[in-house]
Order: sequence, then structure tokens, then C-alpha cells
Amino acid sequence: MTRTLVLNAGSSTIKFRLYDEQNGKSNRKLIAKGSASKLGSPSSNLSIQTNEKGKKFEDTVTDDTSHVAAFKGLMDLLGKIPGALNNIKIVGHRIVHGGPNFAAPLRLTHDAISALDDLSDLAPLHNHPSVMLVKAALEMDLLKGADHVAVFDTHFHQTMPEMVWRYPLPYDACEESGLRKYGFHGTSHAYVARQVAEKLSQPLTKLNLITLHLGNGASACAIKAGKSFDTSMGFTPLEGLMMGTRSGDIDPSAPYHISSEAFSLTGRTPAVPTAPKGPKITKVEDVLNHESGLRGICGESDLQKVVEMANAGDAVNKEKKRRAKLALDMFCYRIQKYVGAYHVAVSGADAIVFTGGIGEHSKEVRSLVCQGLKCIGVDVDDEKNNECDVTGDENSVDIGSKDGKL
Amino acid sequence: MTRTLVLNAGSSTIKFRLYDEQNGKSNRKLIAKGSASKLGSPSSNLSIQTNEKGKKFEDTVTDDTSHVAAFKGLMDLLGKIPGALNNIKIVGHRIVHGGPNFAAPLRLTHDAISALDDLSDLAPLHNHPSVMLVKAALEMDLLKGADHVAVFDTHFHQTMPEMVWRYPLPYDACEESGLRKYGFHGTSHAYVARQVAEKLSQPLTKLNLITLHLGNGASACAIKAGKSFDTSMGFTPLEGLMMGTRSGDIDPSAPYHISSEAFSLTGRTPAVPTAPKGPKITKVEDVLNHESGLRGICGESDLQKVVEMANAGDAVNKEKKRRAKLALDMFCYRIQKYVGAYHVAVSGADAIVFTGGIGEHSKEVRSLVCQGLKCIGVDVDDEKNNECDVTGDENSVDIGSKDGKL
Repeated sequence: MTRTLVLNAGSSTIKFRLYDEQNGKSNRKLIAKGSASKLGSPSSNLSIQTNEKGKKFEDTVTDDTSHVAAFKGLMDLLGKIPGALNNIKIVGHRIVHGGPNFAAPLRLTHDAISALDDLSDLAPLHNHPSVMLVKAALEMDLLKGADHVAVFDTHFHQTMPEMVWRYPLPYDACEESGLRKYGFHGTSHAYVARQVAEKLSQPLTKLNLITLHLGNGASACAIKAGKSFDTSMGFTPLEGLMMGTRSGDIDPSAPYHISSEAFSLTGRTPAVPTAPKGPKITKVEDVLNHESGLRGICGESDLQKVVEMANAGDAVNKEKKRRAKLALDMFCYRIQKYVGAYHVAVSGADAIVFTGGIGEHSKEVRSLVCQGLKCIGVDVDDEKNNECDVTGDENSVDIGSKDGKL
Repeated sequence: MTRTLVLNAGSSTIKFRLYDEQNGKSNRKLIAKGSASKLGSPSSNLSIQTNEKGKKFEDTVTDDTSHVAAFKGLMDLLGKIPGALNNIKIVGHRIVHGGPNFAAPLRLTHDAISALDDLSDLAPLHNHPSVMLVKAALEMDLLKGADHVAVFDTHFHQTMPEMVWRYPLPYDACEESGLRKYGFHGTSHAYVARQVAEKLSQPLTKLNLITLHLGNGASACAIKAGKSFDTSMGFTPLEGLMMGTRSGDIDPSAPYHISSEAFSLTGRTPAVPTAPKGPKITKVEDVLNHESGLRGICGESDLQKVVEMANAGDAVNKEKKRRAKLALDMFCYRIQKYVGAYHVAVSGADAIVFTGGIGEHSKEVRSLVCQGLKCIGVDVDDEKNNECDVTGDENSVDIGSKDGKL
């Protein structure tokens, strides 16, 4: 009996899954999953679900709500499941940014840790939480016997051609800084692409796909002959689609023209400490990452709540409703434009795939996005779309009508 | 006999045309046209062509090569054509950025001048030369009797819906700063749209078009039912397509992560002085506007020269050739993606229009761009495309094959 622990640290969350691998990958069995949320705020909730139906363990952390403290709390909770922590042989760490040097998963030796520190300098906003968690996990007695492996969100996108990943900026300066499009959400785009190939009973290498990972972070991927050809996120996960709290694409001049007075109105102090060396997180960059997107337009970053606000009756403040509708329209219009662009990029897509929390659960977003895509052959069956609310890993649903071309 | 003088000031050029309007607009007659180039460098060339075939006047300015000095030089040259300067009743000034307050052409009264100064503060990099020229022209005895009118590049795009022009940034801060998508090249997009409607013998209000203005600056426009619905340039003319020296779209975080050491390698001092009040032009912003785009990738900003470098034989340095090919591929790929996006934005385009110096003269760019657009029904007749090298205002050529859908 060997087990695999998979860890995923976001800016204010940790998620994990514990799998039993005794009969090889194909018989992988989920033992438990859980999360810590609201890290960094006065109180953080820990929660674990076991594979026995309905069996849960919960806890609240109040004094120290750091990633490290919450991770220890989660492991303590997990210890309440008899035998759960025995024989963990592999710990998988999701790292957002692989930088220029990591084109494949990385076995975490002591030398590798300093390379991760350099990555944290390159992308302080996005890698810092994972790197803290890697260090805490490596120090933990319980996990000292395991192999620790870092898996990078940027990995799948290493197949992008140079004309796609290179920015139209001074060539030599970019070479020196590692400044290029990396792309993120790679594990998700790769996973759903494989799923779709299976569903369509076609080899992935013969498929052109547009995959839309729509969660609190959101990205689109143009998959040509099964490989990542282009993706909407760039050097950082800020580029591309409009997101819960991130702007996505804007005029690159815009941040320089924002009056600092206007922007300081948001009155927020950056949540993620700046790495000790390397580039600093600027105030504006923090605003672009945490105060923009859906939240910037209507004050609410959760798409489902935005939809509710937009659909609410007169009881709600009219301007609030208008702003929620505006945020939803902007969110969907920007997705449509990427679908159009990527349809051309892959010389015609065979399918469009929705995934991530919003992609799986929001029939409104799927419907609004697809309504605008008729001119490239997309036609959604409303009934199938309305019924579709995917839960779990293993399901996928075809929402296309028989009239659609893809 | 009344005459109209049209002035267009760029960052290092002035172009003008002088028309005779005696028989109304439809019988407008070109009297002379001319330009001043390389302004701000040690020596600037002035050149005027008259409507008598082959008749030219040329001059060189060396000591003071400012916009104001060059404009005076051009008017002196124009004075050599007998009677040319009599009866100028209208002076049209092209102003790049109309800001939040100018949704229509503006008659330049003394009050209006201070409003233009405010605009110059908002967009110092792009409006500063025009505003200097407006002031010089208003002071000039010869033009004191004329009506001066400002025409804004942003005007045509005022029909964009809010979900298109609004950025996913903090709402109130943007309201306060006038930070939104304005769009530019409006007079060009509007002009070619009217031309195409005439050519297709259809009312413009029934046409969906994608117009590509490809010059040293480049922008795409999505025209829905004859009106601007979306355009690639934004708050400034930096957003959108890759250009001669401008980056176009990049990760909004990218500038913050560029090591200042790497970027100072380009060693350039901003050419345009910062306006006395208002936001300053940063070093990075200057790099994004003047050291990026085609020039950033291969050192050459002139598309035709890039094409020559890319097609050159072994005589040329291999890396130089590779970079030129890369720059050309990036330039065309980024146009293709906008065409795909705007095809969806207008719910299916009826035609794609190429204009601007590159759009009119580069069969290579037209061919490379359209090759990737077959999946949305574009099919180019190679013979027609190769023969097409539009000169003058009045010609347009259909390069579509009979198999194409649009």
C-alpha cells in the first residue's frame, strides 16, 4: 500500500488530495481530500472529507493563519483517519510558475530548493505560497521518507512555437530577463484535452481544441494536433481573460496613466510579502491582480454571485444590478474573442471544452459565450446545457446540438 | 476660390495636404501635398509636390528641427507656388487622442486650446506634437483668418458599447482617470468602411467589416452594422497589434518584471518631452512605444525592409534573417488572431479590408495573414493579391477568390 499526497497552494488557500496507488495508476483510489481557506485573514477554516460517504473533519485556525500553520493543521486532521498518513511515498507539489529553466516536473532535492527560491523571486505573487509549502512539507517528519516532486503549470505549454511565446519587446533584454509567454493551468488544459480525445474516440494528436479553464483564475488554450499552441496567460497569470480579481488584457500603458490618488482609493495592502531579492510587487500590480476583473467592475469576485446579482429583481440596488450585468457581459465577451482568435490559430477547432469551477457549473456563462459563436459553427443544445452541472473528475458532457459543426 | 489645409503631425513627421474646395466637396482638388521628416534629428527634410506633374520643392532644415520650425519651413516652400496660400479658409488638425470629453470634431477657439493642453497631459507621447502644431498655426498671420478644426482619431470609436470600451479595472478609479478604451485611426477605419460599402453597392449600415489599418502604427477595427464595435488600440495607441516600434498586447505585469539593467541596454532617451503637469512618460513606456514591435525583434521597424531581410539569401547574416522572419511571423499571427476575434465580435464579417502603407503595399503580409484565415471562409486569389499595390486614395481592389465566403 503506497500513497500519494497532492498539494496545491493558492494565494489564500491550500487544497490537497490523498490517493492510494496500490494497484497502479488506473486503480488510483481517493482516500481523502480537503482544504484550508481564507489564509491570512483573522480566521481560517480547515476541512477534510474522507472516502466514507459524508464523513468529514473540520477545524478552525485563528492565531496563525499562515500557509505553513494551516498545512500542519490539515495534516493533524488527516491523522484522525486511521492509517491515512502511513506509507506516503510521493508528495506532488503544484507550482504555478516554472520559469525559463523547468520544462518538465522536478524532483525536489536540496539543490532544487534554491532554484525554487529563484522562481519565487521571478513570480513572487504567484509562487510564494507554494514555495513556503514545499519547504514546510520537506521538513515534516511524516513526509521525510517520501519523494517530493514539483509539477509546473507552465509545463504543458512548452510546445508553443517561438512566434507565439515571444513578446514583441527588445529581444536581448527579454532573453536576459526570461521575459516570455509561459502560460499556466497546464495540467488542467492537458487533462481535459485527453478526456475529450477519449470521449470522441479519436487520437489526441489528430484533434484541434480550444480549452477554457474558467475558475477564479481563467485561461484559454489553443491546442493544435494535441499540443499547446497558444494560451491566454503569459509571463504571469495576469494576462488574457478577465478573471475574478485579475484584469487580464489591458493597454500596457494603462497602469502608468492611472493617477496614484485614484488607485489608492482601493486602500489595500498587498497580501503576499515581496520576495527578499528580485523584482518587487508594485502597488499597481497588486491592484491588477486582486482588485480588478469581476471585483473591479461590480465589487464581487465570485462569478455565481455576480450572476445572481445580475438576475436579481428590483429589490437590489439598480446600479449594483447594472454593474453585475456589465461584469458578466465583459467576462463572456472577452472569452468569445479568445475563442475566435484560437479557432483561427489552430486552423479550425474540432471542439470547445469548458472546465474549471465556472466552466463546469455556470450554464449562464456557457450559454452567453456560445451564443456569440454561431458564425464559427458552434450551436448549443439549451436543454443539455441547462442540465449540465459537472461534479467530480470523471464526467464530461456534450452540450453541442446536432446542428453545430463543432 | 476657398482652400482647406489639412495637417497631420506625428512624433517625428508633419504631413499636409492643400485642397481647393471651389466646387464643393465632390469636386475637391488637390493643389499640393508635402511632408517634413526626421524631426528632432540633426537634419530634417522638407518636401512639397504640386499638382503639376513632377513639380517639386525641397529644402533641408538643420539648426532647429522642431515641429514648429519645420512647419514654418513647409509654409515658406508652399509660398513658392503662386497663389497657393491665398484664401485658406479651413485648417484641419488631426489630433490623435480626443480623451473623454471630445466625441466630435472641435472648432479651435481660445478656450479650446487649454482643453487641448489637458489632452496633451493625458497622452503626452501621442498628442504633444499636434498640440504644438495647432498653437503654431493659430499664431501664423497667414492662417489667422481661417477656421481651425481639430479632428480626433478617437471619434469614430465612440459607438463602442460599454462592455467593450470598459477595462476590467477598479470602476471608480477608471471613471476618475478617464481610463478606458478610446481607439485610434478612426478617420481611416471610417473612410475605408464607406469605400467598401460603395464598392459592394450595399448600405454601410447592413455591413459587418473587419478593417485593418497597417502602417507604422497598426490597428484592427470590428465594424458592426457600419459602426465601430471594437478596436485593437485602447487607452493609448500602444495596445493591440504588433507595430513598427510598438509592442501592442503584452502581459500587463511584464513591464514590472523587466530588470531595469536589461532594459537600459537600449540606451535611448525619450524623444518627446514630458508635459509640464500630468503623468510622466516612464522609461519603460518609452521602450514599449519606440524600441519594441518589429524593431525590438529584428532591429528594423520598416515592414518592407523586414520582408527583404527575411527573404534575403545566404549573403545576409543567418541570425538576422531568422529574426526578420520571426518578426514577420509574429506580426501576421497577431493580426490573424484579431481577425478571428472580431469575426466573432461582429457575428460574422462580410469583408476584411487592408489599408495603411503595409495593407496597401505588402502582398506578403496580406498573403500570410489570409493563409491562416481559411477556416472562417477567407480565400485569396494569389494572382489578384500579387498584382495589387494600391496607390492614391481612390482605388481599392478585391483580392478575394470566387471560392471565399467573404
